[in-house]
Amino acid sequence: MKKWFIASLLTLFVLASVFGSNPATAAGGGSGSQGADQDSDTPKNVIYLIGDGMGVTYNTAYRYYKNGGFSEDMADTEFDHHLVGQQKTHPHDEEENITDSAASATAMATGSKTYNNAIAVDHDLNELETALEVAKASDKSTGLVATSEITHATPASFGAHDESRHNHAEIADDYFDERINDQMKVDVLLGGGIEYFDREDRNLIEEFQNEGYDFVSNAQEMQQSQNSQLLGLFSEGGLPKKWDRTEETPSLENMTQTAIDTLSQDEEGFFLMVEGSQIDWAGHANDIAGAMSEMEDFEAAFAAAIDFAEQDGETLVVATADHNTGGFSLGLDGEYNWNAEPLHEMHRTPEFITEEILETEDIEGTVDAYIDWALTSEEIGALEEALLLPTADRSGEVEGIIKDAVDKRTFTGWTTSGHTGEDVNVYAYGPGKDNFQGLTDNIEHGDFLKSFMAQ
Amino acid sequence: MKKWFIASLLTLFVLASVFGSNPATAAGGGSGSQGADQDSDTPKNVIYLIGDGMGVTYNTAYRYYKNGGFSEDMADTEFDHHLVGQQKTHPHDEEENITDSAASATAMATGSKTYNNAIAVDHDLNELETALEVAKASDKSTGLVATSEITHATPASFGAHDESRHNHAEIADDYFDERINDQMKVDVLLGGGIEYFDREDRNLIEEFQNEGYDFVSNAQEMQQSQNSQLLGLFSEGGLPKKWDRTEETPSLENMTQTAIDTLSQDEEGFFLMVEGSQIDWAGHANDIAGAMSEMEDFEAAFAAAIDFAEQDGETLVVATADHNTGGFSLGLDGEYNWNAEPLHEMHRTPEFITEEILETEDIEGTVDAYIDWALTSEEIGALEEALLLPTADRSGEVEGIIKDAVDKRTFTGWTTSGHTGEDVNVYAYGPGKDNFQGLTDNIEHGDFLKSFMAQ
Ligand SMILES: [Zn+2]
Ligand SMILES: [Zn+2]
Repeated sequence: MKKWFIASLLTLFVLASVFGSNPATAAGGGSGSQGADQDSDTPKNVIYLIGDGMGVTYNTAYRYYKNGGFSEDMADTEFDHHLVGQQKTHPHDEEENITDSAASATAMATGSKTYNNAIAVDHDLNELETALEVAKASDKSTGLVATSEITHATPASFGAHDESRHNHAEIADDYFDERINDQMKVDVLLGGGIEYFDREDRNLIEEFQNEGYDFVSNAQEMQQSQNSQLLGLFSEGGLPKKWDRTEETPSLENMTQTAIDTLSQDEEGFFLMVEGSQIDWAGHANDIAGAMSEMEDFEAAFAAAIDFAEQDGETLVVATADHNTGGFSLGLDGEYNWNAEPLHEMHRTPEFITEEILETEDIEGTVDAYIDWALTSEEIGALEEALLLPTADRSGEVEGIIKDAVDKRTFTGWTTSGHTGEDVNVYAYGPGKDNFQGLTDNIEHGDFLKSFMAQ
Repeated sequence: MKKWFIASLLTLFVLASVFGSNPATAAGGGSGSQGADQDSDTPKNVIYLIGDGMGVTYNTAYRYYKNGGFSEDMADTEFDHHLVGQQKTHPHDEEENITDSAASATAMATGSKTYNNAIAVDHDLNELETALEVAKASDKSTGLVATSEITHATPASFGAHDESRHNHAEIADDYFDERINDQMKVDVLLGGGIEYFDREDRNLIEEFQNEGYDFVSNAQEMQQSQNSQLLGLFSEGGLPKKWDRTEETPSLENMTQTAIDTLSQDEEGFFLMVEGSQIDWAGHANDIAGAMSEMEDFEAAFAAAIDFAEQDGETLVVATADHNTGGFSLGLDGEYNWNAEPLHEMHRTPEFITEEILETEDIEGTVDAYIDWALTSEEIGALEEALLLPTADRSGEVEGIIKDAVDKRTFTGWTTSGHTGEDVNVYAYGPGKDNFQGLTDNIEHGDFLKSFMAQ
């Protein structure tokens, strides 16, 4: 029987852990983690995935969405198989007790809490060493992948240091200028943000190329590169959302797979951070369609990481969030339903549809092209009125009408355009995963990652 | 070193589980539970605690509340130490894909999904055997404790069967009339709901007394009873909330301790279900003060259960929720804060304060007596106007104004007066706990509990 086999393996495993050495255990288990320290192997490679803003509701919503809403079984998502616990996300900030993405990513990257806005620096602006830097100091390869600008708060907190997340150009400079043991800090950079690399005052793309990096700017070029160092920038700002992409733009899964293929050539191991950046952006916009688009994108990237780790056997994969966004709820105004069907009947996000409406001024044609359910005559009328507004106000108004129409049909609730403070889920697979069981503080993640990467 | 010792114990334990027998394992591990089947002992006793409506936000909010909001450390609650995973709560209902308390309690009690409203019956109204009934059939003692009417959906789904949760009198009858192996089904019943026992058509209190039960109706009587069977009903409907109670009314901790003291006399073991019923009621009312009152009450009951289990060594304690309520968020309207201070400066719930205002018609005196922060002149003015409304509308309006004042000061968001569909946390301690690790479906809880209680 399988049960015997698994239990025997487990016994061997526990014995091995007693007689083996384990730096992660020395760093201390999760504060509430009953099962910590059982799987005490130290991974050679770490793939740490952050669904920005992916609070618990996004995980459940995505399961409902994948199952079409009504299902007795409600089959598990890729994440569900690997739930090990949750983490606390609060920052160390005198003025705000709900974190931004900079403070939380700094905590996960460095093991230290800091103020909102800080990129891997403490309150005195001292630089905090990140897990990526520890990996590079151990002669491992390193990578950052995101669907935002690659200089955005989350990837920046792993690969740069700055007093403010808003200093995108300085962060891009930091990626290039700061060396660890005379080596380039980040071997693979894939995401958006050309504007911060190809600047009037400095052309970082050329500088990276002069250091031996391949520069790629679309999915096809990315697939073809065989180089061990790679700078891929696929849009001026953030990438289009998954539902809105053309073939030019790689998916988060494509970028993650490319990063893994490239970094895993290094026999010393690697550290890779992957961000599903725009789950958060959809949350800020209170856009459930955009949120599901980006959950799809993030799940596929996670699955690619798990596939690699299953083959490799020496790779820890962690997927988590940095905070919750939007006060999103499954259910609204007394209705005991969350209806996923209208989302399956949309082929672009409200953001994309809005741009098309503004460009074509053809409301019904555009809506018909991308949404399979009908707007009411009131909703059409409101869109027509919105097109008569001053240019600056049109886009927000049109997109708002479409998003409201979706919320009403799906029974999706929102309470804020900002972040919320709830604990977020932690999913883990591979050696070292048991350190993440139970309730952890986000700084423990930083401690674990750094101790793993120090080997 | 401690690490060696724990690892050695663990090894012995795994060996024991390989050569021992374990019905819980046979029932299957949690769908995503990597660590399941490691702690494979079968508990002799089960204390299963349900925080009704206690979604993840309530758990995080309560931690913020206990820590005064701003804290770098944000010390753990009693729950936090024991987080093992989450559960899916969706019902099997053609019309609603967000559960009510009846369908979810039925799932956790019986291992079967059913329609919203069902009390331990399936779609064909067949009775579904509950874990409490299995315990009684195994000659264990059994108990139900709640701060709602003891005939409310959650306790009812463990101790009765009915096509509708609304049939309170029939549910009370069921507690008395239905026997298991000629024995009374529930040995200890503690909660509210006198109206359903002391009725015109039937006096169940006398009938219970004739069967040898002590009947108690206040905290003092409850403490004094030494009987092995106990019916305690402390209010006509639900109990007052913790912040609003006098000494007459036992706390959920008192009731839980009494139930444990009574049931643990049985050498065959016991099954006890404890519900923090009014976390949900506060959620429906979008009342954050009431929610924190009831979280305090529920945490103390959980701590009492854990204390017993730590001494006893043969008791599994699980705390979880049946669903989320209210679409409650920590943070509101773009504010990156959740301010717990105004809640510490309230000494009664808005419900209680409202009753006092309506009774005394003294707005400022009442508010001053129970709230340490000041209402604005606009808020006072709105309360004055509310007192001029027709009697039927007054209470809702007054309470709404107070709750809005609290939400505005704490930055608390809500999206619905109903339930929401997010996964809820699972906390566990003691033998058998590892079955609950990772993501479980609520029906798996029922399966585990029944297999434990069949021993
Ligand atoms: Zn954000
Ligand atoms: Zn409810």
